[in-house]
Amino acid sequence: MLSQTISIAKQSAFKGKLAFRSLATQATSIPKTQKGVIFYENGGELHYKDIPVPTPKANEILINVKYSGVCHTDLHAWKGDWPLATKLPLVGGHEGAGIVVAKGENVTNFEIGDYAGIKWLNGSCMGCEYCQQGAEPNCPKADLSGYTHDGSFQQYATADAIQAAQIPKGTDLANVAPILCAGITVYKALKTAELRPGQWVAISGAGGGLGSLAVQYAKAMGLRVLGIDGGADKGAFVKDLGCEVYIDYTKSKDLVKDIQDATNGGPHGVINVSVSPAAISQSCQYVRTLGKVVLVGLPAHAVCESPVFEHVIKSIQIRGSYVGNREDTNEALDFFTRGLVKSPIKVVGLSELPEIYEKMEKGQILGRYVVDTSY
Amino acid sequence: MLSQTISIAKQSAFKGKLAFRSLATQATSIPKTQKGVIFYENGGELHYKDIPVPTPKANEILINVKYSGVCHTDLHAWKGDWPLATKLPLVGGHEGAGIVVAKGENVTNFEIGDYAGIKWLNGSCMGCEYCQQGAEPNCPKADLSGYTHDGSFQQYATADAIQAAQIPKGTDLANVAPILCAGITVYKALKTAELRPGQWVAISGAGGGLGSLAVQYAKAMGLRVLGIDGGADKGAFVKDLGCEVYIDYTKSKDLVKDIQDATNGGPHGVINVSVSPAAISQSCQYVRTLGKVVLVGLPAHAVCESPVFEHVIKSIQIRGSYVGNREDTNEALDFFTRGLVKSPIKVVGLSELPEIYEKMEKGQILGRYVVDTSY
Amino acid sequence: MLSQTISIAKQSAFKGKLAFRSLATQATSIPKTQKGVIFYENGGELHYKDIPVPTPKANEILINVKYSGVCHTDLHAWKGDWPLATKLPLVGGHEGAGIVVAKGENVTNFEIGDYAGIKWLNGSCMGCEYCQQGAEPNCPKADLSGYTHDGSFQQYATADAIQAAQIPKGTDLANVAPILCAGITVYKALKTAELRPGQWVAISGAGGGLGSLAVQYAKAMGLRVLGIDGGADKGAFVKDLGCEVYIDYTKSKDLVKDIQDATNGGPHGVINVSVSPAAISQSCQYVRTLGKVVLVGLPAHAVCESPVFEHVIKSIQIRGSYVGNREDTNEALDFFTRGLVKSPIKVVGLSELPEIYEKMEKGQILGRYVVDTSY
Amino acid sequence: MLSQTISIAKQSAFKGKLAFRSLATQATSIPKTQKGVIFYENGGELHYKDIPVPTPKANEILINVKYSGVCHTDLHAWKGDWPLATKLPLVGGHEGAGIVVAKGENVTNFEIGDYAGIKWLNGSCMGCEYCQQGAEPNCPKADLSGYTHDGSFQQYATADAIQAAQIPKGTDLANVAPILCAGITVYKALKTAELRPGQWVAISGAGGGLGSLAVQYAKAMGLRVLGIDGGADKGAFVKDLGCEVYIDYTKSKDLVKDIQDATNGGPHGVINVSVSPAAISQSCQYVRTLGKVVLVGLPAHAVCESPVFEHVIKSIQIRGSYVGNREDTNEALDFFTRGLVKSPIKVVGLSELPEIYEKMEKGQILGRYVVDTSY
Repeated sequence: MLSQTISIAKQSAFKGKLAFRSLATQATSIPKTQKGVIFYENGGELHYKDIPVPTPKANEILINVKYSGVCHTDLHAWKGDWPLATKLPLVGGHEGAGIVVAKGENVTNFEIGDYAGIKWLNGSCMGCEYCQQGAEPNCPKADLSGYTHDGSFQQYATADAIQAAQIPKGTDLANVAPILCAGITVYKALKTAELRPGQWVAISGAGGGLGSLAVQYAKAMGLRVLGIDGGADKGAFVKDLGCEVYIDYTKSKDLVKDIQDATNGGPHGVINVSVSPAAISQSCQYVRTLGKVVLVGLPAHAVCESPVFEHVIKSIQIRGSYVGNREDTNEALDFFTRGLVKSPIKVVGLSELPEIYEKMEKGQILGRYVVDTSY
Repeated sequence: MLSQTISIAKQSAFKGKLAFRSLATQATSIPKTQKGVIFYENGGELHYKDIPVPTPKANEILINVKYSGVCHTDLHAWKGDWPLATKLPLVGGHEGAGIVVAKGENVTNFEIGDYAGIKWLNGSCMGCEYCQQGAEPNCPKADLSGYTHDGSFQQYATADAIQAAQIPKGTDLANVAPILCAGITVYKALKTAELRPGQWVAISGAGGGLGSLAVQYAKAMGLRVLGIDGGADKGAFVKDLGCEVYIDYTKSKDLVKDIQDATNGGPHGVINVSVSPAAISQSCQYVRTLGKVVLVGLPAHAVCESPVFEHVIKSIQIRGSYVGNREDTNEALDFFTRGLVKSPIKVVGLSELPEIYEKMEKGQILGRYVVDTSY
Repeated sequence: MLSQTISIAKQSAFKGKLAFRSLATQATSIPKTQKGVIFYENGGELHYKDIPVPTPKANEILINVKYSGVCHTDLHAWKGDWPLATKLPLVGGHEGAGIVVAKGENVTNFEIGDYAGIKWLNGSCMGCEYCQQGAEPNCPKADLSGYTHDGSFQQYATADAIQAAQIPKGTDLANVAPILCAGITVYKALKTAELRPGQWVAISGAGGGLGSLAVQYAKAMGLRVLGIDGGADKGAFVKDLGCEVYIDYTKSKDLVKDIQDATNGGPHGVINVSVSPAAISQSCQYVRTLGKVVLVGLPAHAVCESPVFEHVIKSIQIRGSYVGNREDTNEALDFFTRGLVKSPIKVVGLSELPEIYEKMEKGQILGRYVVDTSY
Repeated sequence: MLSQTISIAKQSAFKGKLAFRSLATQATSIPKTQKGVIFYENGGELHYKDIPVPTPKANEILINVKYSGVCHTDLHAWKGDWPLATKLPLVGGHEGAGIVVAKGENVTNFEIGDYAGIKWLNGSCMGCEYCQQGAEPNCPKADLSGYTHDGSFQQYATADAIQAAQIPKGTDLANVAPILCAGITVYKALKTAELRPGQWVAISGAGGGLGSLAVQYAKAMGLRVLGIDGGADKGAFVKDLGCEVYIDYTKSKDLVKDIQDATNGGPHGVINVSVSPAAISQSCQYVRTLGKVVLVGLPAHAVCESPVFEHVIKSIQIRGSYVGNREDTNEALDFFTRGLVKSPIKVVGLSELPEIYEKMEKGQILGRYVVDTSY
């Protein structure tokens, strides 16, 4: 351990004495290298191997990642099939939960030993008009974990201290991982719907990973929840999570009518976690007059279609919701740590990540996988 | 029990006198018949003729209509080509300005001699969930002037006192007429965009009847206005009304880029008074990140298309805005009476209305026509 | 002109029949007289006696009141010790629950046999700026049940159909009575605080009639509730209702510190149902930075004192909340009918009302009394 | 110039090579020492002398301050008579406008040569619950210019890049200086009132430094402005700035009535820039029902008193407003750079600052002084 500490000191010396000074605030035993999963070209081989431990900048913390959730976005980052280019080589992952082991000289809101989380938004400029209004995910210079910034599929990862999630000590780090992306995303979508306690919200795709979290958040927010999905098993599952009504689209002969009847006129809000374009457009029909349809999933090439006449007469709104900001993150975590939201996971070793990607690509994944970085 | 029923009948008979008494609150000289334009079947002949003066119900006022604006909706009502059936026979018109000459016994907010206006929304139930939240135009029992309730193309018309517009005494009754529908509609659309003074709003179709009012309201609300329309004349016109920037779509090679460049990133809000589906869908592209696209025109069969991915990443909103409520009406009128909004009109006699309809159907109308009910 | 006046008179006479017809919309067995409690001068004797059944106006419903809550405001109305004069003679009561037995000709939102409630706000002009923005309780012409309009301490009472509470059929009419004033009032206060689910709200006076309802509404709205009151019994009571934390002001040595410690910095909102001026002013101290202090009780001559420096630096807000409007009423009732809010009551006969007033004046009342109008 | 560059290089070497690297992004000619006004104990002598040029941290910019406004808060900082201790020795000033000449390694939102402003809030933690919701001025770790951080009464000052004001190039740096504190403060107060264009706002103390800016911002936001102050000169002045109505409190026999008459029921909002406790409490009386009273001035020991009964019945709100955040700053500057707000100033040399303090203490200051740091 001592040699490791010395080696990091040398590394810092290489970068300047001030950098060393800044890392004076660190745990005693940060290794020089670590295990991580890295790829060198989009779609290329995923290597589970020794890679260097990164050094935090003045504004960053270094997190010893214990667990990281695996998300479909990680697959897109690896394949490189989204419009935005990834950094290369890249360590993926953006749902990492761990412990702060070092911090840069400007960091004032984290101490060594604090729990911290790596989110999709690793950092933002904080100076543009979007950051200034708290919409940091919309920052044109947004730095994205596991995309433009090495992410949480490694044992030590850096994050801008301003954006890093503040996880209360004692939180289960494996279970909290999916909250850092999936949880925040659906919670933000629910806030975007601007509903009041007692109103109806429909969750389209209620039985999936995002949907099951959305149901629980909605219930904790005092909303009445109608879940839409396919099959009796999904129905039993989402009712158990808090859905007052379940609509099985494989059974319904008139989905719009059934939903409107069950909610005495249509839900006041709809959260579209389903990525079916038809389902999305249909939600503009069954939503209540004056209601709000929230788009949150990211289906490729999908178009939301809304007939203008009805849109105006019913005065509905279609609102896009991207991931949450710092405040949303804290709030979403608070519901989790208070026990109001559960996130069922399957834990595997970080070394098994390549197989998970393979399964994910083949559509063989059920539920949320979380990797343990220790094996 | 029988005796009780009889006694209540007597009581009611006594009430018959009260009903009569209630009309004691009236001007001394209401005629029995009046001039109006009436049709007996949709698309049938428009008769300028003597018709009975209506009697106000307990909750209604009787307005001596002096002037009434003519709107495209009147053409639809006459033709009967909208999904909702009109009453028949029908007196059209929903932009009527005049003087209160009688009122029902329950009316407390109007006195004989007050100025009052007939709006599209003649009355609503005030008891449903939409009325209860002030969204009376969305009431399922909405009673519509010149559509389900005889309107303002007659010299005496009735209106629910709660919904009738309160026009300050001394207001020019001819010029105020178009405010009662067109003015309220665009003002409501601007409120629906929820912009703050200093932000950019684009008016798509700025040079038309609705558009030119929208430009003026927007400017009076402290907004920076970008007008979109075709031709140099329209440009000079809307700049004169308050547009800081004019984009001529007949000249622009890249409308999205031109609009975004002129507004340093796109307007914070867009008011689509243009009914072109392509223009509407395009507004989802040039609107600023986090911006709000407002749909307000009612093009038949048009669909607003918004790519889901961009909708989410930019976190935009598409908001439908129907006509305004009582508060919006008062506010829209206040801007007008304070001289901040002008409504250029052409005045013709009510007897000439059939020719106006004919011109309107042929698309030969430029500007806003107002009929004088006295000839 | 004369002939015209005559003709309109004939028309009205014709209308007399309509008025009669309008009351045809009634149950078959409305008696001519009924039992009620009436007084002829402020502070004068309370007579339980036969009085005439009132006739609804065109805009009113006639409610066969089954139960009515008794509120401190009723005592003020009887004594006449508030700035606003009562009507005389007066039948008090403003928490009446019953069944619609007749309705005026303009009423469209109630049918005979519907359940309906009499609230403090019996009717309002619907045409002033306050009514237009949905703030009907602030209407200068507000008509108040049991104050300026005969109230619910009789078997048959009238109410403006627009303002009358819509109670779902099957609701327990005795238990719902206190919701019609106390419930709506605290629910409105909670809405006025504009908190989001997951935030802390303190209820000052949590163990009382209003307070115990406030605790339950707050919990149903997803808030974390801290109750403040005196004594261990009150503590057990409010914790059972949903308080996460109880602060006993008779035990606390530093109330401000204790409350702030328990809520990690102070509650985001405070609902002052306690009428102690000291407690109210103190709430400005313990409320969280950016928090909202809501005033809802009506202590005579009390002044809320807030030091300007701290008010500004902490950027707090002191918000007055009066009774709710139509929408608030529906929402408050909905929480009740969904079983999320209980209202413990003691039922006595209407004939016993004078004794209740006596006890109330002596401060001997514990809990909420509801009178059964049938004996 | 060369020697200066070398000397700063040496200085950096002293602090570490990384610091030097970070300052590699700097203008070529930053001197080692500069002129500034400094004091060593509260109330002690103000020295205009050579002091070292500070070095920006990784997150900071170094601004070559050209002009700085002088504010009453500077007097408090010097005297040390506020509850919060100042740093010592201290360079005061928090309205500094200048040019970025160096920046730390983490700064991404400023380039060398950009215009930048020093505000009261020099920096905040960005990680606490208040920073997370954009309420950085309420951050418990707020770093205050000219109070806990050396301010703008020197030629070179540092500022956290996130909080530093972004001033468009070409802006008049002398005239913009008072906007950086006074302008932002009143603009924020107006936003806190949450009024809509067309509503009435009263500015209590309209003729003073803050008041005259408030009048202009209010008008630019589409509000109708009523100014309150004393004397005919003030009246002429504020009417010229945009007040529609002027109330002279030295002439009015019934201020409440006069204000309510002039605004048809009272202003919808009141901005209390006057620090008179009596005037503040009185504003709770004349404000319109449902209106908002904003506290923004910081009178020592003043208490705002509001009678609870009227507060509730009128449902008014008393809202504290502190200085603005990053977004408010940008918006306030935008109104200024668009020419909608003027700030009349008197420019003197920085060396004359001690005399200005003396005059300020004696109450001999009229209007806003701005110091030119070049002499």
